Amino acid sequence: MENKIILMSHGMMAKEMLNSAKMILGDQIDYPVVCMSPNDGIDGTKYKLTKILEQITGNEKIIIMADLMGGTPANVASMEALSDSRINVITGMNLGMILESFFSLKEESLEEKLMEIGIQGIMKPQVQAIDDE
Amino acid sequence: MENKIILMSHGMMAKEMLNSAKMILGDQIDYPVVCMSPNDGIDGTKYKLTKILEQITGNEKIIIMADLMGGTPANVASMEALSDSRINVITGMNLGMILESFFSLKEESLEEKLMEIGIQGIMKPQVQAIDDE
Repeated sequence: MENKIILMSHGMMAKEMLNSAKMILGDQIDYPVVCMSPNDGIDGTKYKLTKILEQITGNEKIIIMADLMGGTPANVASMEALSDSRINVITGMNLGMILESFFSLKEESLEEKLMEIGIQGIMKPQVQAIDDE
Repeated sequence: MENKIILMSHGMMAKEMLNSAKMILGDQIDYPVVCMSPNDGIDGTKYKLTKILEQITGNEKIIIMADLMGGTPANVASMEALSDSRINVITGMNLGMILESFFSLKEESLEEKLMEIGIQGIMKPQVQAIDDE
């Protein structure tokens, strides 16, 4: 069964990270996003997330990638996970994690894999000339 | 001497990550961003970055945080680093790294610290109730 992915952030970051992923992978990657606006607070953010969760009626695993440990989006997601055992929350999302998720939707321990990929992607690139320059 | 920070991404992600940081820290955090549009390619992205670099006339360290190892923004930044020894590139940026950078602008090994913070921020949050719920 395919895992479901939800992206959550302060502001429009989650939506634009998804758009960045679309620039690379095309429109085939499409996840629901929760973009917390400045006035949402906990309740407004929870409302946005709940509306998405209501549409996931199966018992598949739901992985919520949030922008920041300790931030309202991550806290709201964690709170929902208390009453919905399908939900797994990971924080600190970066673009590599979003890209990888698309190719690994059926992995049983996807949240573990995404954390690993996210961590591996934080690095100093080897400096090298690019071919067509 | 304060390090300079530049954020680079596919699409508007870098700008919206900065806006997310502003939601948390206020407008005091303000870095130049290079948002590669679909038609920019290497040359257009390099042009955008060069315009920013030209405005940094001192010999302070410049840390470029890019969205993705192996992506065009990171590659262009790495290429620039070949001819500009002020530039240090790190990839896989997440929001925690951007927030941390603001409080550590004077750190000598800031790029190392940011990678550490970015990696630490990728985690499963402890599930706990929030006070005002």
